Amino acid sequence: MTGFHVDLSGRGDLATRIYQQILAAIRDGTLRGGDRMPPTRELAERLSVSRNTVAAAYDRLTSEGYLTGRVGSGTFVGTFKKARPRQAPAGSIQPRALWGSIAAGVSSTETPDYDFRVGVPDPAYFPVQTWRRLIGQSLSTELYRAPTGSPALRAAIARYIGQSRSVRAAPDDVIVTQGAQQALDLVGRVLIDPGTVVAVEEPGYPPARALFASLGARVVSVPVDAEGLAVQAIPRGTRLVYTTPSHQFPLGMPMSLERRIALLDWVSRHDAAIIEDDYDSEYRFADRPLAPLQSLDHDGRVIYVGSFSKTLLPALRLGFLVAPESLQPALRTAKQLTDWHGDLTTQATLARFIEDGYLARHVRKTMRGYDRRRTMILDILRRDFADVLDVVPSVAGLHVTAHLHPHATLTPDPPVAVRPLARFCADRPLPGLVIGYGAIRDDRIADGLRLLRASIHTRQ
Amino acid sequence: MTGFHVDLSGRGDLATRIYQQILAAIRDGTLRGGDRMPPTRELAERLSVSRNTVAAAYDRLTSEGYLTGRVGSGTFVGTFKKARPRQAPAGSIQPRALWGSIAAGVSSTETPDYDFRVGVPDPAYFPVQTWRRLIGQSLSTELYRAPTGSPALRAAIARYIGQSRSVRAAPDDVIVTQGAQQALDLVGRVLIDPGTVVAVEEPGYPPARALFASLGARVVSVPVDAEGLAVQAIPRGTRLVYTTPSHQFPLGMPMSLERRIALLDWVSRHDAAIIEDDYDSEYRFADRPLAPLQSLDHDGRVIYVGSFSKTLLPALRLGFLVAPESLQPALRTAKQLTDWHGDLTTQATLARFIEDGYLARHVRKTMRGYDRRRTMILDILRRDFADVLDVVPSVAGLHVTAHLHPHATLTPDPPVAVRPLARFCADRPLPGLVIGYGAIRDDRIADGLRLLRASIHTRQ
Repeated sequence: MTGFHVDLSGRGDLATRIYQQILAAIRDGTLRGGDRMPPTRELAERLSVSRNTVAAAYDRLTSEGYLTGRVGSGTFVGTFKKARPRQAPAGSIQPRALWGSIAAGVSSTETPDYDFRVGVPDPAYFPVQTWRRLIGQSLSTELYRAPTGSPALRAAIARYIGQSRSVRAAPDDVIVTQGAQQALDLVGRVLIDPGTVVAVEEPGYPPARALFASLGARVVSVPVDAEGLAVQAIPRGTRLVYTTPSHQFPLGMPMSLERRIALLDWVSRHDAAIIEDDYDSEYRFADRPLAPLQSLDHDGRVIYVGSFSKTLLPALRLGFLVAPESLQPALRTAKQLTDWHGDLTTQATLARFIEDGYLARHVRKTMRGYDRRRTMILDILRRDFADVLDVVPSVAGLHVTAHLHPHATLTPDPPVAVRPLARFCADRPLPGLVIGYGAIRDDRIADGLRLLRASIHTRQ
Repeated sequence: MTGFHVDLSGRGDLATRIYQQILAAIRDGTLRGGDRMPPTRELAERLSVSRNTVAAAYDRLTSEGYLTGRVGSGTFVGTFKKARPRQAPAGSIQPRALWGSIAAGVSSTETPDYDFRVGVPDPAYFPVQTWRRLIGQSLSTELYRAPTGSPALRAAIARYIGQSRSVRAAPDDVIVTQGAQQALDLVGRVLIDPGTVVAVEEPGYPPARALFASLGARVVSVPVDAEGLAVQAIPRGTRLVYTTPSHQFPLGMPMSLERRIALLDWVSRHDAAIIEDDYDSEYRFADRPLAPLQSLDHDGRVIYVGSFSKTLLPALRLGFLVAPESLQPALRTAKQLTDWHGDLTTQATLARFIEDGYLARHVRKTMRGYDRRRTMILDILRRDFADVLDVVPSVAGLHVTAHLHPHATLTPDPPVAVRPLARFCADRPLPGLVIGYGAIRDDRIADGLRLLRASIHTRQ
């Protein structure tokens, strides 16, 4: 066991004080049945008391059954039910008023029976063997790094997004983050003053909205139509626009090229910036991808954000951002002050995974699985849901969204894990469903959608 | 290679557009010598163009030497020097004015010859074999977790700090963070409104000060004396006090019990909170430790912050906080919005490392090494530096601090990596040295201190 802390400050009989503190630790579970106690001599030395004093305390605890001595092997804690677990005090200090109005929407970590959750890949696809081998090779004992993260990983990411997304980035332009969420946080810290107007898509991604609000922004909703964000509806005074042009979250359509150019033009004229969240466009099942805003931007106003949460696992917490040079020094400082940098062993592992070609192969392979699930779901929706749902056309990502017909309603607690579209609406709740196909097993799709269909009722 | 992105939107001869984009990618290094190009059929399908169009582009690149075909094995990129590396645009958007005045003080990641750096453990002590074995067993494919982190790690930490520091914490009271720095950030986000007064120790820990300033706090310095933070000097209106009572950073003395009680009394009377940063008290070479503020606090005003950066490695980025219940919901939301949670595999590895008794053994073992270094350094300072330095008495941690005598000065760039004490002063620079013994090799201590002594000059 760890050096046991005994507090002898104050007055009173030393043996009794030692007795009481060990007793309290046994009763609240801090010391557990079977834990070995430090030898009396060691504890006496550490506490600068005589060995007899510690022995007296141990003797009393032993006679009361709390400790047991085993000849030749030491003194151990007996087994008891915890009387009252040790816990932090209730507290008399309150958080800032702002936190009363912000909900993070923590998701359940249970795996549901019919797992149509949004925004998660299939954990069974995670390349455990390869990753275990690479992590063993990548274990690092360096003390720390620059806040931008592992140089090997920054180089691998710059090349990867250069090839696959034509993003313009040198290795030094990349900042590795704890998932895309931290990338949004860093940009927010650097650009959002109290009251700064930040425009987000409606419907949109609630954790982004909540984050910007927590940083003191005035968050405004901008509607989306079939071409994406309605640029003409961005309010004057907006300083930052958060958008998902590759695969609008949650609706799924891409932003049209005309709209991309209009958005870039708008931010240039109004001295605003854009966060382009390219959260899942690695999975694309048809059509040519359009160039990202970052590579169309000639004015240096786009911060490109990506993540490996969909291609690998969200639990790895690996994301990144590429910002124009004018923002890089502040972003690096913000990253340093926030948490220094991420886990270097995990970063080195991902660098090898990309550079050795595993990532490209992994995306190609898993693409086939997701494509199969997507096709199965779209076929069933077309066949069995035509009278209640309108599917939003989409060719990328790991979920599909559908609007509910005006006469149709979903029962409040359907037996399958689909998300009501209203959960992604901040203003007017839209009736609809968001159906993820990242984690659903192939053999559960038909049954799951049958249960879902039975949960949608129509009024005449 | 990954699916290569070709943008065909707009007008013009398709083969030429494909040719130009591949050429640009080769010239800027996005495609590297030896990379395999996608087969013409595959690229043609993906771009929805005829195979002849892609073949025409490849032929032209081959005839110009940029691509080489190998019969039966495909088409590869030739080897060229990069013409101009791809990079992010210069940018025309500026960060908030606040960031102009905040410096993070990024440390060099080079290992100096005489490594008396402050706040780093010996990387050679890191238990690589054990950690590699445990990490292989701990590799997890779960998708995500509650923002507080791995339940096994929270339970292990609660027990560990209960035993070794008598901190009152149930597993659910613990939030696992990316190092202690993120713990400070979360508390800051939850308690600091624009203009909130935050008191920090002077001299103190610059990254804490910079972080609070970046969150919009009005940071005020409070002097320390031989008993620690001068409680009577805390300005009225202070809402949060940041302090290092176990081992004042950087001076090294502990806060006296009387001062601890006075500080707790002050925050109760003024409705303020305390961050107790217990950053390195696992290493204690004499005397009994005093009870932490957290366990003396009856009013629920102390947030206890700890880290495994000193006992293991800063690069693991593993820290934690224990807050009173009244702050826990906001802290959990802040953690979720900041980065969801930390790396789960690393967290599960540390949980096993603690529960299986490796951490306690590791601390005991490394304690001997650090004690040896500390004793060597103190002996030499007493013998050879008595005319120029006054060592601050201290019995814990991984560094020792000494004040320079009024007639003594350190040359600006000494050949050994010690930190001038002035680097930790925000107001009046104190002449002195902070000498770390975490990373210095035993056989370098005598030589290093000889060089240091030669760098201190005295005026008559």
